[in-house]
Amino acid sequence: METIGFIGLGIMGQPMAENLREADYELVVYNRTEEKADQFVEGGGEKASSPREVAEKSDVVITMLPDSPQVEELVLGEDGVAEGVSEGKLYIDMSSIAPATSRRVHEVLEEKGVEAVDAPVSGGQPAAESGDLAIMAGGSEDAVERARPILDVMGKAVTHIGPPGAGQVAKAANQVVVALTIQAVAEALTLVRKSGVDAAKVREALLGGLAQSKILEMHGERMLEREFDPGFKLSLHRKDLAIALQAAREEGVPLLATAQVAEVMNALLASGHGDDDHAVIARFYEELAGVSDAESATS
Amino acid sequence: METIGFIGLGIMGQPMAENLREADYELVVYNRTEEKADQFVEGGGEKASSPREVAEKSDVVITMLPDSPQVEELVLGEDGVAEGVSEGKLYIDMSSIAPATSRRVHEVLEEKGVEAVDAPVSGGQPAAESGDLAIMAGGSEDAVERARPILDVMGKAVTHIGPPGAGQVAKAANQVVVALTIQAVAEALTLVRKSGVDAAKVREALLGGLAQSKILEMHGERMLEREFDPGFKLSLHRKDLAIALQAAREEGVPLLATAQVAEVMNALLASGHGDDDHAVIARFYEELAGVSDAESATS
Repeated sequence: METIGFIGLGIMGQPMAENLREADYELVVYNRTEEKADQFVEGGGEKASSPREVAEKSDVVITMLPDSPQVEELVLGEDGVAEGVSEGKLYIDMSSIAPATSRRVHEVLEEKGVEAVDAPVSGGQPAAESGDLAIMAGGSEDAVERARPILDVMGKAVTHIGPPGAGQVAKAANQVVVALTIQAVAEALTLVRKSGVDAAKVREALLGGLAQSKILEMHGERMLEREFDPGFKLSLHRKDLAIALQAAREEGVPLLATAQVAEVMNALLASGHGDDDHAVIARFYEELAGVSDAESATS
Repeated sequence: METIGFIGLGIMGQPMAENLREADYELVVYNRTEEKADQFVEGGGEKASSPREVAEKSDVVITMLPDSPQVEELVLGEDGVAEGVSEGKLYIDMSSIAPATSRRVHEVLEEKGVEAVDAPVSGGQPAAESGDLAIMAGGSEDAVERARPILDVMGKAVTHIGPPGAGQVAKAANQVVVALTIQAVAEALTLVRKSGVDAAKVREALLGGLAQSKILEMHGERMLEREFDPGFKLSLHRKDLAIALQAAREEGVPLLATAQVAEVMNALLASGHGDDDHAVIARFYEELAGVSDAESATS
């Protein structure tokens, strides 16, 4: 069994690494906040003192980090993964980062004879815990096939989207669709409530037709039940939209609606809703329209 | 069996009326363009010379008209339905119109002892032909129950949403969600294409997660296949958004995203895309981003 190095034991990374350990992989871990690594190795595995050491001691290195700068630093920076890897190893980045950064990482590692896969995930913490993540992979056919048994431990659906960076492009597209669909449902349900009409009935009727979506089903219900505990934090979704908007600017695609929902999110972040579930977009409209929680709850 | 008066034999109304005739209802029809009424009664039923005459000769009057002004004219205007109805009759408006207009029609008819139901539909021409429309009904419990056997002939799912006008509010909400979800998919897939990534693969991967929607499934495929024959015409969807935006203004709900997608539709109408399927919103982005049909087709 290969030894897996795992860097980034946050809300997502920690349960993902645990699933690998339970599948009997040997683990070498690194986390910037050392306590999390200490806690983790109580259940087995080894703690390394740098990403470089992780890479030296592993056959496969996985990173699960917050954003592009962290990947640049811990992979390409001093004592980073790139300094520790050697020919024949495999690198899998499961962070959601800019496609351009992802392609640069692929290039640097390719020069060292190291295959790389970008494999961002969706499904959030519950899916990370149950091993049911949806994984969108970019990289060569060979690299993705080599990564697949490992990815299958963490996810239920692994799709090879295309060449290096393609996984990140798919993830960005996913986050665009999800954000805009939440906003669509928020605008519609706020109009319904303010019109004095039963929003639960409307949601139910709409689910039977062309307006059906997982978001109308799940986030529509959250909006009705006033359930804004995450789920998926608004602040993280805003970060993902920054990636999509940056990629769109580089590619020359004006994402009018995405830019606009990002501003709506900015307003909510400014008023302290960053740690709420992204369904809280509904509140932006309710506050503008003067719909109170009480009204919402009885509608 | 009750005699049904049917006013408005357009693309939607004609097959709906035919389904009623096939269910053995006696029909009295009226259409502004007389030839359509002449054609229709070749298969059975009677042609009336005014909406008033339709109402005089029927137990139940149904209208299926393009927009609020036509309903105002043919129901409340000279020789209109309101002049021909009498106590105990039932009026069902299946047009998609402004909730405020719908409520006014309800009030006028109520004064004459006539029960009314607003029952706008979704599903388009194919569902009108197969009798599979989704129907969102507003009105009293009694009125909707009385209308139900008739609505069941034309639709597969009849939901009683709430009081008079509630059906129209639900329809407006439906059209808001559908328009914004199409735009979401258009922005995401254009970014994907322009990034040189396989849009079909991304659509497939996204359908397995939180970004899933009927729109991603159906309109996403239309965008990939360059299938912009309607379906549902962009010009009609734009009209429905005008209703939603007007209702929102009256209720005090600022629909930022809906207003913005309406402007995108305006641009497409101005460049001659009004008769295309509403999935043509993708073209707006492709043209801005300089993605050609050829590139799109091979991606």
